[in-house]
Amino acid sequence: MEAAFSRSKSQNQDRLDLSRKGSVDEDIRSVVSLLNGCEQFFTTSSCSGRIIVIDGAACSGDVHKQDCVWLLVSHQKCSSEDVMCALSRSSRDAVLKFEPFVLHVRCRRLEDAQLVHSAAVNSGFRNSGITVGRTGKIISAVRSTHGLEVPLSHEGRLLVDDDYVRFLTQTANQKMEENLRRIQRFYQNLQSALSAERLAVPDAPSEPRSGRTAGRGASEQNPRSRQREAEGFHGDLDLDDCLDLFT
Amino acid sequence: MEAAFSRSKSQNQDRLDLSRKGSVDEDIRSVVSLLNGCEQFFTTSSCSGRIIVIDGAACSGDVHKQDCVWLLVSHQKCSSEDVMCALSRSSRDAVLKFEPFVLHVRCRRLEDAQLVHSAAVNSGFRNSGITVGRTGKIISAVRSTHGLEVPLSHEGRLLVDDDYVRFLTQTANQKMEENLRRIQRFYQNLQSALSAERLAVPDAPSEPRSGRTAGRGASEQNPRSRQREAEGFHGDLDLDDCLDLFT
Repeated sequence: MEAAFSRSKSQNQDRLDLSRKGSVDEDIRSVVSLLNGCEQFFTTSSCSGRIIVIDGAACSGDVHKQDCVWLLVSHQKCSSEDVMCALSRSSRDAVLKFEPFVLHVRCRRLEDAQLVHSAAVNSGFRNSGITVGRTGKIISAVRSTHGLEVPLSHEGRLLVDDDYVRFLTQTANQKMEENLRRIQRFYQNLQSALSAERLAVPDAPSEPRSGRTAGRGASEQNPRSRQREAEGFHGDLDLDDCLDLFT
Repeated sequence: MEAAFSRSKSQNQDRLDLSRKGSVDEDIRSVVSLLNGCEQFFTTSSCSGRIIVIDGAACSGDVHKQDCVWLLVSHQKCSSEDVMCALSRSSRDAVLKFEPFVLHVRCRRLEDAQLVHSAAVNSGFRNSGITVGRTGKIISAVRSTHGLEVPLSHEGRLLVDDDYVRFLTQTANQKMEENLRRIQRFYQNLQSALSAERLAVPDAPSEPRSGRTAGRGASEQNPRSRQREAEGFHGDLDLDDCLDLFT
């Protein structure tokens, strides 16, 4: 089982990034490098958090993003002008969403997944959970309850005024700031948990010296130094893409 | 471990329902009875799905519901008049949310949690996950990506017009309908998975005849027949309340 995990990890390191963006988001490179520097973890998909405006058919189910036109995608705070400009191109039903940080970490053992899960929940990511697939793949998913989903146009017609769009953009930006604070807490909580684990088990096979040095060096001194390795098996997939791996 | 699980299950059966509502929501009694009729499961909290309007201080983090005034709580579809009436009582920042079905199921073994998880994901509840606590408690959490969170007033001043509230209410009601379809699929998928498990392991200790009969009888013939038992250890807790149990 552990040999299979190591094989999967190295295979993922060689894989191309198939995400729309094609790289790890700037704000989570330290977290991603810290985890990928530990031999008991590798990350399979992530998004630091984003404000999006998508234009699709009104439906009673989920908006299927592949059927939508993406009018705006911002991984940083944005202005109400950005949102208004996006809405001016709506021809169907436009929805603004704030989607918080999401991260999927493949873990070697259940205890490893629990370490990530505790750090995530203690950092405010309360929708986090562990998924164990039929083939025994263990994934710790870091998720937040901290979203926003607001219908703004119907059949291309704007449903709200400029003042509302300004207020909504400010609200989305505040959520983006809080999301970043939680990511920083998660990074610190992960570091503490990994250090405590090393103290408890000096020769812990779950995290060899080389992995620690690489992971911490990468994140504390040069966040980009392990970027290529990280991008090699990273994505910005939708949650259903991720869960397809295990069900 | 299994003896400890059985003790916890019977202790929970004797516990009072501490939720605000004090009973299991009508639309999920069959699912709850089916699970609680199996000796390898018991449910610890649930909500069938609801449309709420809460009035609280604008903040960059999550809205902490305990600090909010609940202007509207509906576990059924509601009218735009209901929402307008709720908004007329807003004195701070009111937000309308559609919160889909959520269920937390304590499971005896990891394989039991995987059965619930697969049924949930295959029914469209794609944010579902398994949580394993430090003490070994295994919880399968059934969650959906299918929400709505819309700011509607700021410092008591309405930010949108009546037409928008009508459109938003219609959208929330459509999500409620889709949510109910998914709950029905989840019930059917759970029944099939439990039947397949019984066929695979005729003397499966994970679900004795008595449990099966009670669970299936309750759900197929008389959804209310096991209601009292279900209510004895049921709640309509917020997600953080649930996760507090395991982290």
